[in-house]
Amino acid sequence: MKNTIGNGVSFTLFGESHGPAVGGVLDGLSAGIPLDMQALDAFLEKRRPGKSPLATARKEQDRLCILSGVKDGFTTGTPLAFMLENTDARSKDYAAIPARPGHADWAARQKYAGFEDGRGGGHFSGRLTAPLTAAGGICLQILQAKGVSIGTHIHRLGACADTPFSQEPAELMGQLSALGRKTGLPVLSEEAGRQMEAAIAAAAKEGDSVGGVLETAVTGLIGGVGEPFFDTVEGVLAHLVFAIPGVKGVEFGLGFGFGQSRGSAANDALCIQNGSVYTATNNSGGINGGISNGMPVLLRAAYRPTPSIRKAQPTVDLDRMEPVTLELSGRHDPCILPRAAVVQTAACALGLLDLCTQRFGTLWQRPF
Amino acid sequence: MKNTIGNGVSFTLFGESHGPAVGGVLDGLSAGIPLDMQALDAFLEKRRPGKSPLATARKEQDRLCILSGVKDGFTTGTPLAFMLENTDARSKDYAAIPARPGHADWAARQKYAGFEDGRGGGHFSGRLTAPLTAAGGICLQILQAKGVSIGTHIHRLGACADTPFSQEPAELMGQLSALGRKTGLPVLSEEAGRQMEAAIAAAAKEGDSVGGVLETAVTGLIGGVGEPFFDTVEGVLAHLVFAIPGVKGVEFGLGFGFGQSRGSAANDALCIQNGSVYTATNNSGGINGGISNGMPVLLRAAYRPTPSIRKAQPTVDLDRMEPVTLELSGRHDPCILPRAAVVQTAACALGLLDLCTQRFGTLWQRPF
Amino acid sequence: MKNTIGNGVSFTLFGESHGPAVGGVLDGLSAGIPLDMQALDAFLEKRRPGKSPLATARKEQDRLCILSGVKDGFTTGTPLAFMLENTDARSKDYAAIPARPGHADWAARQKYAGFEDGRGGGHFSGRLTAPLTAAGGICLQILQAKGVSIGTHIHRLGACADTPFSQEPAELMGQLSALGRKTGLPVLSEEAGRQMEAAIAAAAKEGDSVGGVLETAVTGLIGGVGEPFFDTVEGVLAHLVFAIPGVKGVEFGLGFGFGQSRGSAANDALCIQNGSVYTATNNSGGINGGISNGMPVLLRAAYRPTPSIRKAQPTVDLDRMEPVTLELSGRHDPCILPRAAVVQTAACALGLLDLCTQRFGTLWQRPF
Amino acid sequence: MKNTIGNGVSFTLFGESHGPAVGGVLDGLSAGIPLDMQALDAFLEKRRPGKSPLATARKEQDRLCILSGVKDGFTTGTPLAFMLENTDARSKDYAAIPARPGHADWAARQKYAGFEDGRGGGHFSGRLTAPLTAAGGICLQILQAKGVSIGTHIHRLGACADTPFSQEPAELMGQLSALGRKTGLPVLSEEAGRQMEAAIAAAAKEGDSVGGVLETAVTGLIGGVGEPFFDTVEGVLAHLVFAIPGVKGVEFGLGFGFGQSRGSAANDALCIQNGSVYTATNNSGGINGGISNGMPVLLRAAYRPTPSIRKAQPTVDLDRMEPVTLELSGRHDPCILPRAAVVQTAACALGLLDLCTQRFGTLWQRPF
Repeated sequence: MKNTIGNGVSFTLFGESHGPAVGGVLDGLSAGIPLDMQALDAFLEKRRPGKSPLATARKEQDRLCILSGVKDGFTTGTPLAFMLENTDARSKDYAAIPARPGHADWAARQKYAGFEDGRGGGHFSGRLTAPLTAAGGICLQILQAKGVSIGTHIHRLGACADTPFSQEPAELMGQLSALGRKTGLPVLSEEAGRQMEAAIAAAAKEGDSVGGVLETAVTGLIGGVGEPFFDTVEGVLAHLVFAIPGVKGVEFGLGFGFGQSRGSAANDALCIQNGSVYTATNNSGGINGGISNGMPVLLRAAYRPTPSIRKAQPTVDLDRMEPVTLELSGRHDPCILPRAAVVQTAACALGLLDLCTQRFGTLWQRPF
Repeated sequence: MKNTIGNGVSFTLFGESHGPAVGGVLDGLSAGIPLDMQALDAFLEKRRPGKSPLATARKEQDRLCILSGVKDGFTTGTPLAFMLENTDARSKDYAAIPARPGHADWAARQKYAGFEDGRGGGHFSGRLTAPLTAAGGICLQILQAKGVSIGTHIHRLGACADTPFSQEPAELMGQLSALGRKTGLPVLSEEAGRQMEAAIAAAAKEGDSVGGVLETAVTGLIGGVGEPFFDTVEGVLAHLVFAIPGVKGVEFGLGFGFGQSRGSAANDALCIQNGSVYTATNNSGGINGGISNGMPVLLRAAYRPTPSIRKAQPTVDLDRMEPVTLELSGRHDPCILPRAAVVQTAACALGLLDLCTQRFGTLWQRPF
Repeated sequence: MKNTIGNGVSFTLFGESHGPAVGGVLDGLSAGIPLDMQALDAFLEKRRPGKSPLATARKEQDRLCILSGVKDGFTTGTPLAFMLENTDARSKDYAAIPARPGHADWAARQKYAGFEDGRGGGHFSGRLTAPLTAAGGICLQILQAKGVSIGTHIHRLGACADTPFSQEPAELMGQLSALGRKTGLPVLSEEAGRQMEAAIAAAAKEGDSVGGVLETAVTGLIGGVGEPFFDTVEGVLAHLVFAIPGVKGVEFGLGFGFGQSRGSAANDALCIQNGSVYTATNNSGGINGGISNGMPVLLRAAYRPTPSIRKAQPTVDLDRMEPVTLELSGRHDPCILPRAAVVQTAACALGLLDLCTQRFGTLWQRPF
Repeated sequence: MKNTIGNGVSFTLFGESHGPAVGGVLDGLSAGIPLDMQALDAFLEKRRPGKSPLATARKEQDRLCILSGVKDGFTTGTPLAFMLENTDARSKDYAAIPARPGHADWAARQKYAGFEDGRGGGHFSGRLTAPLTAAGGICLQILQAKGVSIGTHIHRLGACADTPFSQEPAELMGQLSALGRKTGLPVLSEEAGRQMEAAIAAAAKEGDSVGGVLETAVTGLIGGVGEPFFDTVEGVLAHLVFAIPGVKGVEFGLGFGFGQSRGSAANDALCIQNGSVYTATNNSGGINGGISNGMPVLLRAAYRPTPSIRKAQPTVDLDRMEPVTLELSGRHDPCILPRAAVVQTAACALGLLDLCTQRFGTLWQRPF
């Protein structure tokens, strides 16, 4: 349904980068859920631009304005609508820009016939991830009260690789915990973080950008969540994560590594200890048959380098239909991954709360 | 909605491997679409088991039985329901089997509390891809009449790699055409095909299985298709492809390759020729901002090796809750990719017809 | 989504009157629900044609064939698909019939352009209520195990009126109980039943048909069910009941009677007894603000007289586009209400189970 | 999906009466549709409170604030979000009010456990019809450009009856046209209007309220619209209209009048003139088999008297769980019908644009 997703919990997103506001409506929440607005603001802060020399200088306060569904700090059980006003939109930066390669400009022109709001990427701007992050942040608070933890780190950035998430649950929980306390780049290895910062700075200096891979882990998710045949955990999470601008690949567990493996090596042996079943490895990324199996969920998404680069690029002026060379100025992230990590966490939280709600009902969401 | 997917065209799937039948209901088709049942049977034949020494010996005739929605060879415009009876189910092969590593058995037990129909994998069996293939095969016929071609080849199987699909549209169309005429393994390179056959045979001999990657290409898709923010082409196709049992990763265009690229190399330069805009390369896989841009759509999916292997595996007997060693007999594919190729084509056809219908309406589907 | 309805529990319906089969897929049921197939058959028997001199002589065995989702008498938690084969279709009765006034023929021609399966009304036949009744009958069994009772009687048939359902819960439960034991016409007053039979016979004798009103009552439904703003109890039930062919009006509680009332008379005073809140009257029909309030739900639906009458009618031959006079032969119900009562009960059961599942989750459905 | 409705065009509604704002998100609109904001304001003005001695004195400017989806007066093709701030909310009027009979208070308490925002009716307030009216008003503009007209009059108010809409299309179009030019009560007969005003004044004087019936007519709707089995025109419109607070009955064409009719009298004879088919009468209200037949659509909805009355009423204090007598002060409409007429028109416009879009696609909405 286009800009609405989810069944048990559904989220409707709206906005354009340089319109009056971006926002969304989160529906299917129970009444009586306490919201920690301070924690939510801190969550949103992680994707806010304008706070690092490595990111776009666009300064948005990203003040979350709740329009409905919350009273005295608790959800009312009716739709939770919110918006973030666009305050630092510099539309003139985008006036008369020809179609930017790698961006949605040309595809959008074919779809919207010139009526699209192209300023700042319009509906295709990374700015649209702000409401997604807000909605997911609320979902995350509900899941956390149920013992679920979700965290995302930069798994790879250009040629630099971070320590991967562990397949071993206890070790993974330690990694997530450390990641939660981390300021700066969301990485597990300080050394990798320094290399990544250098790689971003190098690209920025050349007027270029770099891509990478973000890895998300989920611990504490009960087994039995997921609604195959179609609403598998993989399908629901991938559907959401592919909505994040720049994502071009999503994999779970071994993912594409399965393609070069043998069954005897890839199968996770089942074990039993004190009456509890678990798997010795977690190649499946916590999901079998589209259903959570009780082991940590592991998801990785590939992000393309930001298409907005200062380097000269051949392209087409769609209004005059003639070839031109584009040299972008304006404020652009040389690498989206540091800010996208929290967005990916949010997207996963939204998808998992939806699936849990389908199974356990709206009332289950309440912490008491 | 669990077993229903799609908005403009929706598909509801049902069945268990050893129940009376598998089938589905395809809704949202216009009246007056001619169906080529012979072509549909030939399409289904590509995933049918029992026809190769490299595949499971289960022999299903897979006779498609139309229950509604077709009269005198044309769609009536009401739901097209169909089923395929399960005729060669040998449930005794599955009696008292402990949880099979890598399969849905343990996750399903947690979800369905023992009431699941575990025989032959139940609802999680590869057999469920038969109705998905049938539905997608019908969608494909509708798209073909609109000039859209879709084909899938084995991009990689274990260590063997096929010639990849070309980023150049004309060359790609030639590859799709050759692939359509091909019997045997769906590959572009004969030599790669022979290596893959050898790899499958080697794994089978050892009682093991191999994974791989299937690549799908779509040509002739008009630009402007896709419904962001959430119903991006990537999100909708990935949601469907992840429903295919064994898929653990999906990527578009450069996909995970973007993670190691720079923007200046990854952006597809826009060009213009005779008033038509196109891109010099197709790293984006035909999609920008979640919308088709008129270039070919390129999707790759990673398949895990079939979990069913003859080799001994440590596991747990969930009824007695004690560790056991599993040595599977029965009929199993050492590699699912040869049969899964047509399933992936079908899933993509279903998703694209859904998106096209949302944009152009049900009536657009008619060939006249 | 056309032929699929429901969110927590969804139902997809298919079939044409003279096609191979009618049927449906019920999705969102928990695993582990025992199904009483004998009770389900008895429920279906109530709408089966061919068993009364007052009804169509078409003889359908209406043998419910379960295709998936049930094993050893319990639901498996995956889609419950079923069909009823069409065995006594006499298509020749319909060959070359001009558009029948009051039927869907002309509207369907405009929609389906002649490709519709017009035989026996096709997708618009009363026969399509068989799968709706089967699905609702399953839902009813689940609700009954939760203490919910649903029953329907003929409130009015032509000029004859039955005793209405009581606004007083205890009395109403007695009425539902008596109705459940009743054979013959579903009425509360024997005398009214005799008058109705006479009215039907009189219409039949004249080659005519009669309309009426069916009233459904629901007891034992917990307060707090319903998902406003849009998925009110009224909206969800009306959506389903209007799908029953022939229904042209739906009202709750006082319904259209509210139109001539004053607030002081129509408001249901709240009372309290032993810590329980209830209303002194039940003009609201158990629903306020679209949410159940714990009092019995009362719904009435108006049915048009069967459009198929033997009396001569002026109409148009749509193929030759010329005026003709239609004199129908064939087998037709002079009054649909006796058979429709169970369909209306089923439609309400389906809607209420959907809403309960949205609130309490799929797992709540289990009887243990 | 709770607060989201529609498939081709979907609408998500949010807000509480005394929260920061009410609003909604309209999704599925094509790019390039011109919006007449002045006409939209005039449309909204018709339901605005505070402008008549017969209506609540709450003064809301109801300034429609567009948040996204519109640029330079044209839709952009992305979600059209808007809000109306709540400026004249006097929450103290509602402080410590016991459950009001006939209102959602008690049902909401059972659903939301005391976390609901009860001030001014919260999510159940008539104020929520403002965003519904705004969304429907936009849909109406799109339909009007396609030749569709929709109008609503007070068919009955207490004991007073207006001239009914004609079953004859040409005469009906004249009535709709006159109604469009009308100021004051939306009625066809001046005399009936005066009687209604007197009836409202009389009820208001006694601290009471009156109910009634609103009748909507649609002309110019092409045949073939509607998506049975479930998404019939009746079902979709009823689902929407039942969301309007106070509606307890919906009927089409003869509606409940069918219940006392014979088929020979109720069937609409088909005629042909100059190659066009039409019906001599329009008892079916323009719909057969759930599909529009090309004749005008006729819908009537019954509204309960406003539950908020000044007269003393026995009720229960839900916090202290004890019986009390309620004497409401505050600002309340003695009759909601004058303001609800435009809401009902809007709800029908939303439903019909959704169904037309499913059939003809999003692109069809464009006026060129």
